[in-house]
Amino acid sequence: MNHEELREFASHTYIFLLHHPVLNREGKVITTAVTNLDIHDISRASRTYGLGGYYLVTPIHLQQELVHRVIGHWQEGYGASHNPRRKEAFDTTRVAGSLDEALQDVSSIEGRMPVVVATSAREHGHARLIDYPQVLELSTPVVLLLGTGWGLHESVLDRCDALLKPVRGPVDYNHLSVRSAASIILDRIFGLR
Amino acid sequence: MNHEELREFASHTYIFLLHHPVLNREGKVITTAVTNLDIHDISRASRTYGLGGYYLVTPIHLQQELVHRVIGHWQEGYGASHNPRRKEAFDTTRVAGSLDEALQDVSSIEGRMPVVVATSAREHGHARLIDYPQVLELSTPVVLLLGTGWGLHESVLDRCDALLKPVRGPVDYNHLSVRSAASIILDRIFGLR
Repeated sequence: MNHEELREFASHTYIFLLHHPVLNREGKVITTAVTNLDIHDISRASRTYGLGGYYLVTPIHLQQELVHRVIGHWQEGYGASHNPRRKEAFDTTRVAGSLDEALQDVSSIEGRMPVVVATSAREHGHARLIDYPQVLELSTPVVLLLGTGWGLHESVLDRCDALLKPVRGPVDYNHLSVRSAASIILDRIFGLR
Repeated sequence: MNHEELREFASHTYIFLLHHPVLNREGKVITTAVTNLDIHDISRASRTYGLGGYYLVTPIHLQQELVHRVIGHWQEGYGASHNPRRKEAFDTTRVAGSLDEALQDVSSIEGRMPVVVATSAREHGHARLIDYPQVLELSTPVVLLLGTGWGLHESVLDRCDALLKPVRGPVDYNHLSVRSAASIILDRIFGLR
């Protein structure tokens, strides 16, 4: 894929950060709180790799408002004139109440339902486990789905079209922050080398 | 390089996060404040890619104490029993008052002065501009040097042995957080594919 094709593919790719249903350390279903730097860092990464959009998905209304307030500050408030590059980072950052709502939103933008690729730090059995270069062989629109907490609930993994191989370094430890994982995954797929 | 050689190389590689001398938006030399998630996220990435150590470099004593307090909480305090994997992430996180102090520390661990590789989001002229795979052709110990704020001061860039190519996606915007940049750089060099 040449540079122009890569840019085109990226513009029809979306990243979702799911706050429910995700797991806690004991494997129970929880709703995590939105973290301020998850809004910032993943917006900046999404913009750097030219994605179509970044959705923060949370069912909690107060948390949705928090995200809107942060985006508003940088897009229209004091932050917009103070730091125009940060303003631009939030151009395609959005909020949704559920995975279905975010998928519907992408579908209405793109004209058809996206292919959904789950991500996980752990090895799971999945009917379609894919490696990073294979993402570019899928049909757009594509959604890359990341979970907060201790990862996506199995009910979510099961309904995804594919599961991406975990990010691994040369040692056994792999407990990256979701901000790091999101950045690395985007770079592995869309990074210029 | 095979898996075992990669692991060995990584264990003699260090990442430094410099808070002084770095630039502000106007290109003036400043000292930035240590950010809590810079401690966490880069420690976790450094541990995931098997590095020899992660140094937070700041001349401000109160900020050095803050880092020690955060590490102490997770290594010895309540956090250690609450989340043993986070404890492990901080095993090789250290604090230094200056770039020279951090380099001396690595030198005393490794028995010789490291090769210092600067990183930057911008294109700079440098006598030795290198690409990611070339890092593995250097002699260990190796230090990867990242700046906070608007990047490393030129006096620092000038004394580095090499400068790493900027991380780029398929579009012109590239304003990643330093946490994202650190994670991507480590993955480009030490990630298993």
